[in-house]
This record gives sequence, C-alpha cells and structure tokens, in this order.
Amino acid sequence: MDEFMQAAIDEARQGLAEGGIPIGSVVVHDGRIVGRGHNRRVQQGSTILHGEMDALERTGRKPASFYKECTLYTTLSPCPMCAGAIVLYKIPRVVIGENRSFMGEEAWLAGHGVTLDVLQDETCIGLMHEFMTRHPGLWAEDIGE
Amino acid sequence: MDEFMQAAIDEARQGLAEGGIPIGSVVVHDGRIVGRGHNRRVQQGSTILHGEMDALERTGRKPASFYKECTLYTTLSPCPMCAGAIVLYKIPRVVIGENRSFMGEEAWLAGHGVTLDVLQDETCIGLMHEFMTRHPGLWAEDIGE
Repeated sequence: MDEFMQAAIDEARQGLAEGGIPIGSVVVHDGRIVGRGHNRRVQQGSTILHGEMDALERTGRKPASFYKECTLYTTLSPCPMCAGAIVLYKIPRVVIGENRSFMGEEAWLAGHGVTLDVLQDETCIGLMHEFMTRHPGLWAEDIGE
Repeated sequence: MDEFMQAAIDEARQGLAEGGIPIGSVVVHDGRIVGRGHNRRVQQGSTILHGEMDALERTGRKPASFYKECTLYTTLSPCPMCAGAIVLYKIPRVVIGENRSFMGEEAWLAGHGVTLDVLQDETCIGLMHEFMTRHPGLWAEDIGE
C-alpha cells in the first residue's frame, strides 16, 4: 500500500471512529504530506467539509504555484465540489482509492487535464460499502440526494 | 436593488473592511436569508472559504431536499469550486452580481440545469475593479493563478 493512500485511509478511519462518514484525503507536495483531513459533515455539522476540502483547508493558504505541484489522495472519487476545488487550484494529479461506491466528476477532471489514478483499493471499497449499508440516509445527504 | 443582492454586497463590503477580498454571498430559502458569508482567504488563511462556500457553510448542515429549494446570491460569477458546490447540492438558481471582472463556470452550471441571472450590477463591478487594481497578486491567488 502506498504510504499516502494509507494516510488517507487512516483519516477515513478516524472519521468513522468519530461517528462520521469514512472518507479521507491527504495533500502531498514534494514527497511529503502537507495537509490531511476527513469528512466532517456529522462532526461539525458541515456542508462543505468533504474529505478533500478538509485536507485542502488544513494545507492552509498557499500561493497558486504551490497547489500546481501537489498530488491529492482521496479514498473515494471526488464529488463536483471537490473536483471543482481541484480544477480551481490546478492540482495536476489525483490518486483515488476507488470509484465503485460512487463515481464522481472524473470525466470533467480529465477534461481539465488532471491525471487520475484509480486504485480500486479493497479497503476503501469495504469502508464505503459498510457505511452506505448502515447509513444510507446520511450517505445520500453527503452527495446531495 | 434586490434586498438579497444588497445583503451579498453588504457581506462583500464587510470582507473588504476586514482586509479581505470583497466577494459576498447569501443563501435564500422560502423568501428569507438562511446563510450569509464572504471570502475569508485573508482573514482565516483559508483555501476554501470563498464567499459562496462561506455562505453555504454558515447555512449549516441541512437535508439535500432543503438546498434544492434555495437560491444562492453572489456578488461575482462562481469559480469552479463554488460552482461544484452548487452542482453537488442541486441549487436550482444562482443570482450573480456580475461576471465582467471574472467569468466563472457559468456554462457548466447552465449545462447542469441551473438558472443563472446575471445582474451586471455597477456596485459589484466597482468593488472588484478597485480591489483587483490594488491587489492583483491576492486576486490571482484566489482564483488559482
């Protein structure tokens, strides 16, 4: 397992342990993690803190040139909001744990020149499968359905 | 002036008074403002709190059905991240103060069935024109350039 995807999975598990939605993300720059986060809808009553958004926020304010050198790791395919943040900051590469539970805006990202690596990781798939089975209403809320 | 766009402008001016980027937004549901916010890049060192994102976050966690009945007002055309949040939550209508200073992802929003009303409001244009002239580097950072 790639150490960065493992860190994103660790974030997802931390979110689950907090009673939240198990999606985690890390931002990597120059070979090291500069921001990490997880979905905080339940924990903070948040509308916008998906895993990727939380990781970007915790990376902190940086010049635009910084984000263009980052890779974003996320345990689940990015929704339109998170994909929009990736497009805004011109993040060139996204490593996705899996897209079987939810297919996000991958085509739109690819159309903007973003390189996508989809791992179809069994741990990521298992985390989401169990969560979606146990909490279908909460999951629907998180993707606006 | 529409009272809701006036509230968004008031938020933009509050942001400017705080030393921030003058973009404001309000979320309206059933004829009343349920969330309001402004860009907080400078004030909070935030990567993700554009005006629209701040207004959505301050609206708080709601069921998906709630956002589908909202109108979002923003003083400036929404960037990819904010447009993505609008698509995620299926917000059906966005009232935009102006798109002359910055053209956001309006075509993408329209393609998702979002109704867009662009006012080309002189106050909104003036706020951005003055800000972009005085702080071109900060503005570039906010749009990832």
